[in-house]
Amino acid sequence: MSGSGSKCVRLSGPLVKPLLDSVDCVLFDCDGVIWRGNQAVAGAPQVINLLKERGKRVLFVTNNSTKTRSMYAEKMSALGFNVTEDEVFGTAFCCAAYLQTVCALRGKVYLLGSAAMQQELQAVGIQHVGVGPDHVSGTQQDWANVPLDPDVKAVVVGFDEHFSYMKLNRALQYLLQNDCLFVGTNRDSRLPLEGGKAVPGTGCLLQAVEAAAQRQAQTVGKPSRFMFDCLAARFGVQPERCMMVGDRLDTDILLGSNCGLKTLLTLTGVSTVAEAEAHRASGCAQRQGMVPDFYVESIADLLPALQG
Amino acid sequence: MSGSGSKCVRLSGPLVKPLLDSVDCVLFDCDGVIWRGNQAVAGAPQVINLLKERGKRVLFVTNNSTKTRSMYAEKMSALGFNVTEDEVFGTAFCCAAYLQTVCALRGKVYLLGSAAMQQELQAVGIQHVGVGPDHVSGTQQDWANVPLDPDVKAVVVGFDEHFSYMKLNRALQYLLQNDCLFVGTNRDSRLPLEGGKAVPGTGCLLQAVEAAAQRQAQTVGKPSRFMFDCLAARFGVQPERCMMVGDRLDTDILLGSNCGLKTLLTLTGVSTVAEAEAHRASGCAQRQGMVPDFYVESIADLLPALQG
Repeated sequence: MSGSGSKCVRLSGPLVKPLLDSVDCVLFDCDGVIWRGNQAVAGAPQVINLLKERGKRVLFVTNNSTKTRSMYAEKMSALGFNVTEDEVFGTAFCCAAYLQTVCALRGKVYLLGSAAMQQELQAVGIQHVGVGPDHVSGTQQDWANVPLDPDVKAVVVGFDEHFSYMKLNRALQYLLQNDCLFVGTNRDSRLPLEGGKAVPGTGCLLQAVEAAAQRQAQTVGKPSRFMFDCLAARFGVQPERCMMVGDRLDTDILLGSNCGLKTLLTLTGVSTVAEAEAHRASGCAQRQGMVPDFYVESIADLLPALQG
Repeated sequence: MSGSGSKCVRLSGPLVKPLLDSVDCVLFDCDGVIWRGNQAVAGAPQVINLLKERGKRVLFVTNNSTKTRSMYAEKMSALGFNVTEDEVFGTAFCCAAYLQTVCALRGKVYLLGSAAMQQELQAVGIQHVGVGPDHVSGTQQDWANVPLDPDVKAVVVGFDEHFSYMKLNRALQYLLQNDCLFVGTNRDSRLPLEGGKAVPGTGCLLQAVEAAAQRQAQTVGKPSRFMFDCLAARFGVQPERCMMVGDRLDTDILLGSNCGLKTLLTLTGVSTVAEAEAHRASGCAQRQGMVPDFYVESIADLLPALQG
């Protein structure tokens, strides 16, 4: 029912200030929005720092599970952003929070994931097994009878460069136990890199485990609303006074729509205006959630209004 | 439009001989049908051997890609089946045939697969790279820039116990080239083992690669009709004079329906009569293809009619 005529508007000139005045909190995706690889998007540190100086709550919401909050804060400081680690919500942190709060997990995690996920689990006192290489050996019978840790009560799938057939098999053997929880960090099928390159993302690993287990994982990353619930609970964010800024329609913008936030697409990353327009023109109700309210070439387009 | 009232009939007593008289060719799935693990289903060798003595063409159609035709023939002989390797159609063999005949592949294969697939490709003169372990090292940038063999023109995914993140990544890098073919042996998500155990099947690996590549593979295994086309071309099989016998509704019985064959479910493997009845009762057109014409407890139920 939202008047589609007023969506996907280029945000510029006199439109910027009223929009910023209408929100108290701005959420930013990271890669493709405030940085690309190891370089800040030009003007992005100034935008973030000025928003904070103007009294806005600024938070960061990323599906990437390979960094802890403190690793993010460190990278951001090095790039000139005035950010503390409690302002960063990555899926490594949120996944640990989800297991602790929503699942009230009593038991260990079988973790397909990184050292960062390991650290975030440890920080909330959740024990885990499985990190690191796990090469195959033996016969199919051996794989089916692989020793399991009886304390494991959840399989968690994040980005794992050591993903292997044996890990997939071990996850399956745990998930054949009906009371075993199944949680994924996110469903992004590729990690985009500079120059149009990409490597496989966590979504590929999660799909392999889901196919084996014939079960769907609960995911904490965008567009699942858990990440927003997580930060809203900590900072008392009101959805109607909050804006989500991202470069991906299927994660960032959809999260914003799912949570009733204002949405702003920036064109320094993955998605294009043409894709947003195609969603809008589709007439498909499901795809309307991927149409942003506004778009900018870069978040640097917000700078004049903040400096004025 | 097929009168659903006459489907899913228990095959016994006086019904057996007319059915066998109505066919010249019988196709058998292997695991769960003529053997389980390394043991012949009781009576199965006699059934196969008598069918052949009575002048029936008997062929074997299996999605398992870990054996060559000659490996299958050897296993069958050891279990008492009178079978030659040209009567066996596994996905390792059929995949090589598909690449050679349908794709007319000129170039190498990047192969996620077993030694058996390697041998079947070699037998038709197709070169390949990739078999064996491929462990991760380096950074994301290194992965995205991994050296590629310029002669590779197809990615083929079969069962690969050495499946790893690095192999998934290499497959993605090849598949980012638009002219690269993408073929999978089959979509079975689990390999069932004795005692209700299971390990992850090729379908899991294929889904991971498909998610990364954002492309669908062409699969040669059941229920895709290529395996039937392959054997029909070699032996002049007429669909209306042919019966498919299998233990899985979603592969064996669906293949039979897709190709216009008579279909017989045997209950020594994966699927149950209750599942078949549920498909029939669903009223869903797509699921009717998974309702067999007949079912038996075991293919040994055919024995009296053959001995009489």
